[in-house]
Amino acid sequence: MSIPELEQQEQHDQEMIQAAFDEVLSIYKQSPHRQKVELIEKAFHFANQAHKGIRRRSGEPYIMHPIAVARIVVKEIGLGSTSICAALLHDVVEDTDYTTDDIENLFGKRIAIIVDGLTKISGGVFGERASEQAENFRKLLLTMSEDIRVILIKIADRLHNMRTLASMPQAKQYKIAGETLFIYAPLANRLGLFAIKTELENLSFKYEHPEAYAQIKSLIDAQAKENEQIYKEFKIPIQDKLAALEFKFELIERIKSVYSVWHKMQKKNIPFEEVYDLLALRIVFEPKDGSTEQEQCWLIYSAITQLYHPHPERIRDWVSTPKANGYSALHVTVMGPHGKWIEVQIRSVQMNEIAERGLAAHWRYKTGERDDETELDRWLKELKEELKNPNPSAIDFMDNVKLNLFASEMFVFTPKGEIKTLPQGATALDFAFLLHSDIGFKAIGAKVNHKLVPLNYQLQSGDQVEILTAKMQKPIAEWLNFVITSRAKTKLENALRKELTVTAHHGQRTIEEELKKVNLTPTPEVIQTLLDYYNIRDKRELYRQVGRKTIDVTDISKKIFKAKPKNLLKKFVTLQFGSSDNKMVPLIKKNKKVDRKKTFHLSDDTSSKSFRIAQCCQPIPGDDIVGYVDDNEIVVVHKRQCPEALKLQASQGDRIISAEWATRNEKSFPVTLEMKGIDRMGMLREITNVITDEYSVNIQSINIQTDAGIFEGSLHVYVHGTDDVNNLCLKLMKINGMNSVKRVEL
Amino acid sequence: MSIPELEQQEQHDQEMIQAAFDEVLSIYKQSPHRQKVELIEKAFHFANQAHKGIRRRSGEPYIMHPIAVARIVVKEIGLGSTSICAALLHDVVEDTDYTTDDIENLFGKRIAIIVDGLTKISGGVFGERASEQAENFRKLLLTMSEDIRVILIKIADRLHNMRTLASMPQAKQYKIAGETLFIYAPLANRLGLFAIKTELENLSFKYEHPEAYAQIKSLIDAQAKENEQIYKEFKIPIQDKLAALEFKFELIERIKSVYSVWHKMQKKNIPFEEVYDLLALRIVFEPKDGSTEQEQCWLIYSAITQLYHPHPERIRDWVSTPKANGYSALHVTVMGPHGKWIEVQIRSVQMNEIAERGLAAHWRYKTGERDDETELDRWLKELKEELKNPNPSAIDFMDNVKLNLFASEMFVFTPKGEIKTLPQGATALDFAFLLHSDIGFKAIGAKVNHKLVPLNYQLQSGDQVEILTAKMQKPIAEWLNFVITSRAKTKLENALRKELTVTAHHGQRTIEEELKKVNLTPTPEVIQTLLDYYNIRDKRELYRQVGRKTIDVTDISKKIFKAKPKNLLKKFVTLQFGSSDNKMVPLIKKNKKVDRKKTFHLSDDTSSKSFRIAQCCQPIPGDDIVGYVDDNEIVVVHKRQCPEALKLQASQGDRIISAEWATRNEKSFPVTLEMKGIDRMGMLREITNVITDEYSVNIQSINIQTDAGIFEGSLHVYVHGTDDVNNLCLKLMKINGMNSVKRVEL
Repeated sequence: MSIPELEQQEQHDQEMIQAAFDEVLSIYKQSPHRQKVELIEKAFHFANQAHKGIRRRSGEPYIMHPIAVARIVVKEIGLGSTSICAALLHDVVEDTDYTTDDIENLFGKRIAIIVDGLTKISGGVFGERASEQAENFRKLLLTMSEDIRVILIKIADRLHNMRTLASMPQAKQYKIAGETLFIYAPLANRLGLFAIKTELENLSFKYEHPEAYAQIKSLIDAQAKENEQIYKEFKIPIQDKLAALEFKFELIERIKSVYSVWHKMQKKNIPFEEVYDLLALRIVFEPKDGSTEQEQCWLIYSAITQLYHPHPERIRDWVSTPKANGYSALHVTVMGPHGKWIEVQIRSVQMNEIAERGLAAHWRYKTGERDDETELDRWLKELKEELKNPNPSAIDFMDNVKLNLFASEMFVFTPKGEIKTLPQGATALDFAFLLHSDIGFKAIGAKVNHKLVPLNYQLQSGDQVEILTAKMQKPIAEWLNFVITSRAKTKLENALRKELTVTAHHGQRTIEEELKKVNLTPTPEVIQTLLDYYNIRDKRELYRQVGRKTIDVTDISKKIFKAKPKNLLKKFVTLQFGSSDNKMVPLIKKNKKVDRKKTFHLSDDTSSKSFRIAQCCQPIPGDDIVGYVDDNEIVVVHKRQCPEALKLQASQGDRIISAEWATRNEKSFPVTLEMKGIDRMGMLREITNVITDEYSVNIQSINIQTDAGIFEGSLHVYVHGTDDVNNLCLKLMKINGMNSVKRVEL
Repeated sequence: MSIPELEQQEQHDQEMIQAAFDEVLSIYKQSPHRQKVELIEKAFHFANQAHKGIRRRSGEPYIMHPIAVARIVVKEIGLGSTSICAALLHDVVEDTDYTTDDIENLFGKRIAIIVDGLTKISGGVFGERASEQAENFRKLLLTMSEDIRVILIKIADRLHNMRTLASMPQAKQYKIAGETLFIYAPLANRLGLFAIKTELENLSFKYEHPEAYAQIKSLIDAQAKENEQIYKEFKIPIQDKLAALEFKFELIERIKSVYSVWHKMQKKNIPFEEVYDLLALRIVFEPKDGSTEQEQCWLIYSAITQLYHPHPERIRDWVSTPKANGYSALHVTVMGPHGKWIEVQIRSVQMNEIAERGLAAHWRYKTGERDDETELDRWLKELKEELKNPNPSAIDFMDNVKLNLFASEMFVFTPKGEIKTLPQGATALDFAFLLHSDIGFKAIGAKVNHKLVPLNYQLQSGDQVEILTAKMQKPIAEWLNFVITSRAKTKLENALRKELTVTAHHGQRTIEEELKKVNLTPTPEVIQTLLDYYNIRDKRELYRQVGRKTIDVTDISKKIFKAKPKNLLKKFVTLQFGSSDNKMVPLIKKNKKVDRKKTFHLSDDTSSKSFRIAQCCQPIPGDDIVGYVDDNEIVVVHKRQCPEALKLQASQGDRIISAEWATRNEKSFPVTLEMKGIDRMGMLREITNVITDEYSVNIQSINIQTDAGIFEGSLHVYVHGTDDVNNLCLKLMKINGMNSVKRVEL
């Protein structure tokens, strides 16, 4: 570019930057916050200066990113000047020569602390080693507990990165999407940022499973016209009725997000057609004078159910008891036109704002009444307490907190009728620890709804729970197997630390002795083989379980080191032992280091030593896949939705790499198909005809059962890839009476 | 009595009669009905004259009974002059020389028809033979379908008889109570007479199970003081809140009826302590202007749930979708003071009236809006249709209608979203027949919530159901095994009649051939033995099942006639076969006829030939028992709550007789106890110590299992009666850690 061209470009950039910033400012001025326009302008100019000349991968000036983040912060989360300034400045310390001190001098202590927090956690959460990843996660929570705005801005940052992910290379896309789904979407959900959570999930899904995303989206789009008609018919009587009740309101049509549809299909193992709660209508109303918002929600509920029949089991009253993240609304599923269920979500303007903007909006509106200390406050307080308690294992800590982050909550009651929140799946012992750690330590049993149950009893929402204690009781190591709350786990682990250490030592010695019998030493490779075999992530946990005798290693030699590794196809076996002489040492050859930043290609030519197909999910060509680089630099290929792969990502995200098929249809892979339909004479013959006519498919076995006129069958075949599978399914579906054919996802 | 005394008595009687009648009249005058006082007075004077000089068993003049029935009719059911007159006259035709024609001449056709109906069904429903009982039941439904007031007055008649049952002899008490629970309480429920249904159940229970009644009542009474305090605390904020909302309202405390508590304990097999929904508060409000009653119900719901936490799973919205019997209310269970759940029932004055007075009130209020034809109207219409359809088996007909009478209903939806009511437990095929009999006959499968299921799939409330049909399909006899609605059964049986007859013939022949092999002929006694053995009530059904090969009789001789009757204690065996010669003929000796009107006493002296202990429920001395007179005039002794006894009552109510223990503790009886508690060292030893210290108890076996610190055990012992059992339970309960000990009810 010539100098005039450069100058022209420069001027054009500055105009674009100014316009973007002006928009942020204008949104801010319309918000209910105090008018600290000057400070914001100062932050903008400072950041603009600091990032000058730097461009993003997309070609934009770098400053466009902090401006976009600031825009999300003010518009979509509803935060004020401090957060806007911090958002504008969030990359200055990391990417330029300015320091946190400079920020403090210019913008004060609070903004400097937030920027410092953001800088500390800028590296992301994923790591090469489980311990590293856990440490990153802990850091994230620590900064969050110092000032919640750090994490809110971080989420805004991640949202903007996800929105502009297309310009990233594929390998990086996959990693960022994985991290988003793994940590930021659940965090957004926990903080009540429901709209952002949904967008994060959907974007992650789009980059992680492009094929599934496209397929589901086209299925939803195919219904668009019918849905439009349904909404039209559905809304007219509602509009009339609400107008007659003199409400000011807005009706918002909500079709289930692609990710939610997929998630439901996976969770319930059903095809798209069976996801019947696709349509929702949100009613956002301005409360009238004279009665409470809650009362008006029920008034609208009553109006709706006089128009449409409600489903008897699907009223969700989050008006009387809001969710822990502050969400408050009334949901009811009613039978709409064309025989379609429609979920009606009833919210006041304020409830809607809390739902969309979460925490920040909630704090602004806090009334100081019954909900003086919100569930969210309590959660943060508890989190802080746990962070203070030095937990021996960072990995365990991460697992616990993550679990509580993901779990949907339930309500249980004390014998006196006090209400308590617990994550779903919590046991009576978790409840005991929730009351007090001493009650947990002394617990011997419980009464749930006045019925005696053991401590490992899983509670249900609405249960009334009384804990029975005994003075002589002491905490027991087995309890760790069934408590799920991080509070109970942490308390128990601290109390049992000494015992656990003894157990682990004992376990370690046992393993060493057993290995000695076959002339092996506990090298990292040997231990890794054991961990893989028992499907345990952590060495310490292996020792403990062996020490506690929940794992029996007496036949360790026969089970693992003499036999071929379980569940591995012969040709991919990578661990081999010289068997001619008596000295058994694993012949592990380390491959050359795999480039984590590149997409790994699985051609037929690729030496089989460099990768292997994971047997847990058995991907075939055409599946969305992902690679995990193991300790020997061998790429283990999983399906992207494989739970094992997700587990690996959760502990060693940086070892997960992007991978792609590049075969030429020479190899065959096993798949299982499930069929269901109405039975009739000649069905089996037609099925076998279809299969044998398909020259690219080899049948291994077929198994059909009939019950009350309905047949169900499974079909084991060898194919070259997903094209073969899709072809076969289509042809099978054409058989008269066939109702569904689907591949079994392992 | 001297003549002056008689005259004095006479005058006193007339005053009492007049006062009672005046009260009826005064209630009538306050009701919204037309003022036909003269006609009512005429009916009263006529009946009074007709019954003159006759007294009831209690000593009262007979006319007091018709007056009391008229009082229930006007006050508790809310009917008008026609029904009041018919109630006053209801026993005239049966007990005096007047005829229906006389009634018609004096009071018009309508009243005469009703009195005629009441006269026809005055004999009650129970009968000696199953067919007789079924015929009585059919007669009852026929008169009901002619004029619903017949059955309403009959229920009033039964209610008054139940209220005055104490003056009856015990054997008769038991029979009347059984009939009430069997037919009148469910009918009252179906017709929406909820208050009367509850009273009928409770009174029946009191006479059928006096011990259980007394025990539960004392447990409820023991809580009275605490409950009073709970209600007091609970009501204050509600009163304040509703007053602030400017409602006129009434708060009615409702403690679960003794019968309901017992029923729940039986159904869920739990002790009294675990019945946690004992308390309810009914809010009956006068609707304010400006919004609908439904809306105001939700307004009150909202007010309540702002005061108390609702149970997440226990909202019952019968405001949007009223029950089939017209019941409309909003129920929500909330956590009240002292950690007790309280069910709040929200009803407008009108809803409350419908709930208490049922049908009649409902008809009065019918608005002609959405519920133009109520579910009740539909039910009556369907009933009439079925009565027209001559069903081959009156017994089947009764079973079907009874089943539908008892079942609670559920709502399901057509593919187009239309709502349909079905009894709980109905299958996809029942739904098909509900739509149209042709759809039923041609059904091959169904899609429930878009998922393929077989026709025997049990539907759930809220399911959306699509029936798949095929032109070639024909009704199949096996379908009779899984349809439960009377409509589907009747249609199917009519369609399959020819086939069923052929099958039955075939079955009958098979049985005859098998019997021939052991030189037996199919005498009624032999057939009865087979019916008993296979637990089938009806000969025809036995033939069909043998013909259909669901019962295999090839080894009939070995199975039944060579072996001792299954499940019978040796000493009570009454069927014996001469085994020395080859001719096997049952040596059945008919006892002399048992007096059905007397209570049967089971002393030790009683010849064991005259009675036997039923093995299905194994009653022991002290249990409330009942006798069933079998074909050989042997009394089979059951527990009163034994399902087998209830089944016998349902088909041959007149063979059920009152029975009592009169043993002198010489025999021993087996019982099983279940124990549960917190496990600890030495538990087993203490348990065995307790048992061996109890000289009157012999231990047969003990079996204990421990899981997660909780032990569960069962104990088989021989005792002399319930006193021994209670004693043992008390002593076992004193063991430290023992949580519950209870006798297993077979």
